[in-house]
Amino acid sequence: MKYPNNLNKSYKNPLTYKNRGMDLESDLNTSNEYYRDIDLAYIYKKPTPIGVTDVSYSPRGKIIDRGFFKEPSTLDYNGLYRGKYIEYEAKVTKNRTSFPLANIHPHQIKHIRNILRHGGIVFLIIRINGIDYLLKGDDFIGYIDLHTRKSITYDFIKEHGFVIKYGLNPTLDYLEIVNKIYF
Amino acid sequence: MKYPNNLNKSYKNPLTYKNRGMDLESDLNTSNEYYRDIDLAYIYKKPTPIGVTDVSYSPRGKIIDRGFFKEPSTLDYNGLYRGKYIEYEAKVTKNRTSFPLANIHPHQIKHIRNILRHGGIVFLIIRINGIDYLLKGDDFIGYIDLHTRKSITYDFIKEHGFVIKYGLNPTLDYLEIVNKIYF
Repeated sequence: MKYPNNLNKSYKNPLTYKNRGMDLESDLNTSNEYYRDIDLAYIYKKPTPIGVTDVSYSPRGKIIDRGFFKEPSTLDYNGLYRGKYIEYEAKVTKNRTSFPLANIHPHQIKHIRNILRHGGIVFLIIRINGIDYLLKGDDFIGYIDLHTRKSITYDFIKEHGFVIKYGLNPTLDYLEIVNKIYF
Repeated sequence: MKYPNNLNKSYKNPLTYKNRGMDLESDLNTSNEYYRDIDLAYIYKKPTPIGVTDVSYSPRGKIIDRGFFKEPSTLDYNGLYRGKYIEYEAKVTKNRTSFPLANIHPHQIKHIRNILRHGGIVFLIIRINGIDYLLKGDDFIGYIDLHTRKSITYDFIKEHGFVIKYGLNPTLDYLEIVNKIYF
């Protein structure tokens, strides 16, 4: 029996679960590629910011001989959907009872506030206990402003987050949730 | 005598000209930083996409020992302004009579069409003969679709582009042009 558009389908489905991509980033990249292929949305992962300290030249182009990873001040993914600016961060936690806030840099929290204030769509995708939740930026900020603890409880995520359907194409249909809660 | 908000002020002004930043990218980065400081717009340069082939670890973090630059499929800058998605590419040409289209990758041209079709604001900033022009994405695509030549004539840029004011803060006030032509 199939539930093609049923958001509430069980994540315990062993077939679906077995075939899950190894990591959230590749699941989102294939989903965004699919969305582009069907001309639905143009959302890309930003390259990790890198500082290059040493380069050399080969016949095939410039080569980086030394570099380092910089701390991002924005979120990982952004783009255009239905005429709107959209931006999000995706994080996996192995923690079963809460999402540690150390996963989101202070610069990024400030950035989320800025995007909210300027009318952009901004959210987190949190993979916790093998389930992917979309947590709206304003719920995230609301939690931070009300709590002093260094993590978001799983109970809060379950209550305020939206479960993202895991499937074939797209792998993670998070825009279905975006349609429901932002449009 | 000062013309604080005069778009038509001469670019031959020797004082202004002498103090110009060495390159367009740093001029835009300082402008975008200024726009963020005054809470006007949240526009960032995307990091150059890099493929990392070799890393090592130091006490200060992961170090890239080998990497290469990838070809971008989107434009260099994107972000949020007045609730709208905005994206652009900035290019300098030393050519005095035309802007070579080789400066914009075929993937990027396709991307400009996608952003236009989905209601985003998209344009080029072209520095030619020491003057910075904002050329709207639809004018750029219109030119490409009508001409077979491999460059955009300077005459076309002068006729359809908008001269961006060069000043102190922001260095390049391109959002003043965006206000006029998109809002």
